Amino acid sequence: MYDGKIIFIVLDGLGDRITPQLGNKTPLQSAKTPNLDKMASIGITGIVDVISPGIAPGSDSAHLSLFGYDPFEEYPGRGVFEASGFGLDLDDDEIAFRTNFGTVEEDGNTLILKDRRAGRISGPEAKGLIDSIKEIVIDGIKFKTLHTLEHRGILIMKGDGLSAEISDIDPHATNVPVLKSMPLEKATDFKAAKRTAELLNKYVLAVYRKLKDHPINKKRVKEGKLPGNIILPRGASKKFTLESFKHRWGFNPACVAVGPLYKGVARILGFKLYDPPGGTGLPNTNIKSKFETGLKALEAHDFVFIHLKGTDTASHKKEPITKRDFIERFDREFTIILDAIEKGATVLVTGDHSTPAVLGRHSGDPVPVVIAGPNIRPDKVNKFDEISCASGGLHRIRGKDLMPILLSYTDRNLEYGLHPTNKSQRYIPHTWKGLRIE
Amino acid sequence: MYDGKIIFIVLDGLGDRITPQLGNKTPLQSAKTPNLDKMASIGITGIVDVISPGIAPGSDSAHLSLFGYDPFEEYPGRGVFEASGFGLDLDDDEIAFRTNFGTVEEDGNTLILKDRRAGRISGPEAKGLIDSIKEIVIDGIKFKTLHTLEHRGILIMKGDGLSAEISDIDPHATNVPVLKSMPLEKATDFKAAKRTAELLNKYVLAVYRKLKDHPINKKRVKEGKLPGNIILPRGASKKFTLESFKHRWGFNPACVAVGPLYKGVARILGFKLYDPPGGTGLPNTNIKSKFETGLKALEAHDFVFIHLKGTDTASHKKEPITKRDFIERFDREFTIILDAIEKGATVLVTGDHSTPAVLGRHSGDPVPVVIAGPNIRPDKVNKFDEISCASGGLHRIRGKDLMPILLSYTDRNLEYGLHPTNKSQRYIPHTWKGLRIE
Repeated sequence: MYDGKIIFIVLDGLGDRITPQLGNKTPLQSAKTPNLDKMASIGITGIVDVISPGIAPGSDSAHLSLFGYDPFEEYPGRGVFEASGFGLDLDDDEIAFRTNFGTVEEDGNTLILKDRRAGRISGPEAKGLIDSIKEIVIDGIKFKTLHTLEHRGILIMKGDGLSAEISDIDPHATNVPVLKSMPLEKATDFKAAKRTAELLNKYVLAVYRKLKDHPINKKRVKEGKLPGNIILPRGASKKFTLESFKHRWGFNPACVAVGPLYKGVARILGFKLYDPPGGTGLPNTNIKSKFETGLKALEAHDFVFIHLKGTDTASHKKEPITKRDFIERFDREFTIILDAIEKGATVLVTGDHSTPAVLGRHSGDPVPVVIAGPNIRPDKVNKFDEISCASGGLHRIRGKDLMPILLSYTDRNLEYGLHPTNKSQRYIPHTWKGLRIE
Repeated sequence: MYDGKIIFIVLDGLGDRITPQLGNKTPLQSAKTPNLDKMASIGITGIVDVISPGIAPGSDSAHLSLFGYDPFEEYPGRGVFEASGFGLDLDDDEIAFRTNFGTVEEDGNTLILKDRRAGRISGPEAKGLIDSIKEIVIDGIKFKTLHTLEHRGILIMKGDGLSAEISDIDPHATNVPVLKSMPLEKATDFKAAKRTAELLNKYVLAVYRKLKDHPINKKRVKEGKLPGNIILPRGASKKFTLESFKHRWGFNPACVAVGPLYKGVARILGFKLYDPPGGTGLPNTNIKSKFETGLKALEAHDFVFIHLKGTDTASHKKEPITKRDFIERFDREFTIILDAIEKGATVLVTGDHSTPAVLGRHSGDPVPVVIAGPNIRPDKVNKFDEISCASGGLHRIRGKDLMPILLSYTDRNLEYGLHPTNKSQRYIPHTWKGLRIE
């Protein structure tokens, strides 16, 4: 029934480190996961360097890698994926950034960043703040800011002669100064990059002046909360065209995700987006609904990507027990995925990166992977965790190797060299034509 | 006696998948192989992605990889190797193709491919058919067709301004239309490629018209056999110069093989060819004769490649038991190779790709490898099969890593960077000259 079809499940930030609170096990190791362990026992396991060994992947480049794109060659920057997640396609004269609301304090004439998420400011408050800075024009360049979820947003700069080759305002750390954007040393158009960076710096200061005494912030301070008094742009990127997933791998893909970034990556690659009812992008999400939405999508599609964010969110909050509990809840719902394997589906479960809960941010530790399906040569591993999978039959592979491996497991690959357009071993393109008798 | 010498044995299509007929073991796993297991116990094992993970290698690119050439950088297309196997070196104005006789049926004005080997038509019949299409001239371009073995042949197009950057006629599948050759999207000379593709399409239709009512085909149909009524060219390639094996690795190499393709690859790389008496390229081949011919060649050479096709042929016919039996027969004859290890030879046994007998064609599953010899650091594996070798001390490596590993095991390698011409860690070239006192 599901022959040749693939379910590709990513538990965001799944990989972890040994955790004293959990008896020196990782959250995944300490979780009771009879269903994932069953999948390991019938499948093949391994560990994955999603980008390359030791590299801590960003969520966007991680997913590109997992989908078989080269993160060193085909990564345009984060802004474009965030925008895509909200259905925005960039114009040629636009630069997109991911933004956070942050909290700064003045120290002389420096702005010290106290919190990168403005105390996880609520959506309605963030939206209220954005109303006052929605459209700002500086030296003829338009700055348009959009709210997405909670403290997150998108900034679009629009105007002639802009460059995305500039550094971030967001220092990605706290108790350090907010950074001045600079042209990248190796910018192809250094002058344009210098001008763009200067304009962005002006914009950030203008925003700070507008927000610092904003009534919403005054109210938050009165309530003992951190004000959202700055915008922290990062990941400048221009319009960028990536080969579609269908063209590259021959699948007709669907995406079941809630987070805008994941939807954004999938949308740019041509996945059809499905919204799972009850999905929150948090540990309280409706996991069953995600699986059911995915299985429904598998009727019309032959590749379904299901994304779960709860593992990562718990890790960023440094809550290993919340992470473990989320994994156990995932495992309980996983029976319907095991059923799909019985019905012929090839299923992969992995993470997009490690987010050790003891650390609270992404690390370069590899992530475990398990693949099960009708054509798998099983290994001797029968437990799904970081340590067990390190002895698996897949050994240590790269994120971008997964798609060729899945093509082989679903018998869709051509022999290398069989067709000159097909040196990199793809499916038979549906654009090929039959020879006609004239 | 064999110190520093290498025997490099390739069992074509050796790798496999679990096979219900064999108690869910692979043919190699289920075969009784005491001699190969002994080699595993004294040697080091691993699994090999001959091209890269998940990629199903073609036989030519696979052998190039195993011999230490980069299949992504140094692969000219199949035609040139097929021609080389018959002692043909291409002129600058020639394009070579591998061809099969196939069986087509008309469906409206499309030709539907019913069999890619014309019911495995016999050599004499195929030769008889070729007589009628030996030389065809279309728009001043000569098409010369040569018979090789059974349904196989070589097509050479000769004339000015031809391009090899065109797609295949052979769809590599049945019950689909014979493909129209097209210029590759990224052809360096698109106009030349377009013209070449159009000429090739005309040729294929001309051949069809000549063959469809050919007396040999009429006779075959009367006998209930499939007619060889079309030629299926694939793997267009021009003359291509590869660095010789001796220049790259410092060995003086010999080849013991029967199949034209394997001889073709070896010949292009400068191997001396030895014909083993009784070799058939089939499961009934004289294995002992191959080993004896190889050991004899090892007297005058320091690198001997021995190729056995029986494993692959059995797999393509979906006969896992024939494959297992061939492996057992190979193992029984293998004692003289074990003796050679005792006498100082370094021996490697692997496959060029997996051809699961349950699938009937090449897959991207990695192949097992074992190396034994005087300088090997053995691992804990003492059985030679896909699953056991996955726990071996070589781990998961690439095909093109094998030659540097063998150089090291025979103590022929230089330190990396020791000599500027020697970045890729080679032997001391015999072309280096002593400094002479003038």
